[in-house]
Amino acid sequence: MSNKAWSKAEFEAKLRAKGDRYHIHHPFNINMREGRLSREQLRGWVANRFYYQLMIPQKDAAIMANCDCRETRRRWVHRILDHDGWDGNAGGIEAWSRLGEAVGIARDELWSLKHVLPGVKFAVDAYVNFARRAPWQEAVCSSLTEMFAPEIHKQRLANWPKDYPWVASEGLQYFRSRISLAQRDVEHGLELTLAHFKTRAQQERALEILQFKLDVLWSMSDAIALAYPDSKKSRNKT
Amino acid sequence: MSNKAWSKAEFEAKLRAKGDRYHIHHPFNINMREGRLSREQLRGWVANRFYYQLMIPQKDAAIMANCDCRETRRRWVHRILDHDGWDGNAGGIEAWSRLGEAVGIARDELWSLKHVLPGVKFAVDAYVNFARRAPWQEAVCSSLTEMFAPEIHKQRLANWPKDYPWVASEGLQYFRSRISLAQRDVEHGLELTLAHFKTRAQQERALEILQFKLDVLWSMSDAIALAYPDSKKSRNKT
Repeated sequence: MSNKAWSKAEFEAKLRAKGDRYHIHHPFNINMREGRLSREQLRGWVANRFYYQLMIPQKDAAIMANCDCRETRRRWVHRILDHDGWDGNAGGIEAWSRLGEAVGIARDELWSLKHVLPGVKFAVDAYVNFARRAPWQEAVCSSLTEMFAPEIHKQRLANWPKDYPWVASEGLQYFRSRISLAQRDVEHGLELTLAHFKTRAQQERALEILQFKLDVLWSMSDAIALAYPDSKKSRNKT
Repeated sequence: MSNKAWSKAEFEAKLRAKGDRYHIHHPFNINMREGRLSREQLRGWVANRFYYQLMIPQKDAAIMANCDCRETRRRWVHRILDHDGWDGNAGGIEAWSRLGEAVGIARDELWSLKHVLPGVKFAVDAYVNFARRAPWQEAVCSSLTEMFAPEIHKQRLANWPKDYPWVASEGLQYFRSRISLAQRDVEHGLELTLAHFKTRAQQERALEILQFKLDVLWSMSDAIALAYPDSKKSRNKT
């Protein structure tokens, strides 16, 4: 009976178990968490990750462009508003831009995308293109790496003030804001995924999709780690 | 000097002159305005036009999915909110659904799309697919038929109560709401179009794009007129 569908609880557990492949375990992120990154490495990470932040609303709009369920669109549009902002709320992209300033990247320099590495661009674009072309329920499933995001944000909020005291605290607002928003987004994404992927074959496809998205994030970290290697000083510190 | 770029004022005038090809001049709409449509014809129009309404948020999300300008997205997202609605606002699709009920189409029947004609579906889908694939500035330009919409809505608000008194007045809320919203949308769409299409060749391309969208609307009216022909009674009345 290996092709019997998993129960919703089993399926959710399988999805959550994918967390062991989340980029929280990537050597570059471990160095970040352990306070071992140089200023240049942290700046390189912020500048590159900015491209991901910048593309999130286009990814979410692509999902909505393919989504014929008005009720889903009414909830999903909040993701676009959260990132782009609206009257009276600057939004997540702007918050990341302030993180850039807090680590010493001038605004124009960040928005110019001049530091964005090819490997990072390819990975992010692969994600956005998947959202453009896949059935919207598959694109929703690919967003479920958000299940693992609150933990990584909490680590940064806990460790940066002691490990990277040169980063102004206001710069961390993005991480603060995402903890509750990610939780809300995960609930919606999981609800849709558990309802849509019903047969065992579909459930296994969902795991593959989530792995694809984990690969996007991991691949970004690989590209950043290669371009911003450990300095002798940071190697000595480890 | 035939290839000299038009001034912004000249270019806008050329765009506005396209109004003579707007479906306000289609025989079916003239019959509607003159009070000559049968109940069956009016119902046929409402049921078919519903498919257009339903696809508008997906069309606008497609534009946003291709749009790398955050400031534009922050303004464009209001079109999605207007149609899909948000907490405390039912939105334009729901308003059209109430128009359906007001002309005697049960809610489930309308949302089933069973009355949507192939010609209407093809025309609407051509519009949405254009928005998915064209550069976002071209898709914005294609939305400029909204320049001509307030007039057609005003005609309906003025004439329906006397010509089609069997349609409950609450059903006309969609037309009421669109007059001010269309005006706001036109300002934004025109601003982007006048800024983007600069050379004479680009400006001529913009006129072609607007013509394409006029063809979408005209083609919908053609399909509806063919499927819901004048009855003897209505022919006698003309």
